[in-house]
Amino acid sequence: MTLPEPRDRATRVADTLAMLTTPAIDVWVATASTTGSPYLVPVSLAWVDGRVVVAVDAMSVTARNLIATGTTRLAIGPSRDVAMIDAELERAVDVADDVALGEAYVAQADWDPRRSAGYQFLVLRPVRLQAWREVNEIPGRTLMRGGRWLQ
Amino acid sequence: MTLPEPRDRATRVADTLAMLTTPAIDVWVATASTTGSPYLVPVSLAWVDGRVVVAVDAMSVTARNLIATGTTRLAIGPSRDVAMIDAELERAVDVADDVALGEAYVAQADWDPRRSAGYQFLVLRPVRLQAWREVNEIPGRTLMRGGRWLQ
Repeated sequence: MTLPEPRDRATRVADTLAMLTTPAIDVWVATASTTGSPYLVPVSLAWVDGRVVVAVDAMSVTARNLIATGTTRLAIGPSRDVAMIDAELERAVDVADDVALGEAYVAQADWDPRRSAGYQFLVLRPVRLQAWREVNEIPGRTLMRGGRWLQ
Repeated sequence: MTLPEPRDRATRVADTLAMLTTPAIDVWVATASTTGSPYLVPVSLAWVDGRVVVAVDAMSVTARNLIATGTTRLAIGPSRDVAMIDAELERAVDVADDVALGEAYVAQADWDPRRSAGYQFLVLRPVRLQAWREVNEIPGRTLMRGGRWLQ
């Protein structure tokens, strides 16, 4: 099989931002307990002011892990056109308590968590972001480091 | 949007086994360090004798986490037609040291790790398996518990 030419950085950034702003797109959220138990769920995301925002039950394993460890690893897209994001929990807020965030979330996601009792928005700050399709895109896959897009 | 009728258990099991035996299919492998740092990668899988088999560098974060904690959470399929599997590390073996396993892996995956120095097959035993498409398939999503398919 002949692979397409690897994309340059600017193209990967543009493709990644297009993916992050796609309506009704899901993100894989990997978290860990403080004792090393892994967890993984798919949830709907919104991309708001450079943050990944998800809505989960405050009692869910994902919320509890993120509150406890402050860190998550996210995957967006299929496994051969992926953006992998290491992110930190910036804040957790009850879905009823931040009107602007709620409106931004609902504008992109395909469901409305604002009337779900006990749900929180988790605002996740990307720290490192990598994007690749096939193996020939492994070199140059890092697009963000230390929370900053590489130039 | 009207959702399709939820599938019954037998259909979900058949669909899940069909997915697990698809050529060149990838699996999301979520692991955790013993100190609560999450990790996540997509890799090619083979379904061999009721086990999920992946091939990774023995020095990779995934291999080190799995050796240390013995546990992983796997996702196969897109986020709205998913099988989620909690699995345990049954054994890790150098890719050159188990000929039958190597042949079984290569027969399904789309690459051959057997000449990659330092690579291991990780043989993962499913303990719990859930499969669902949309929200109306959340009830009845558990297909395996305690390592046994539910009847």
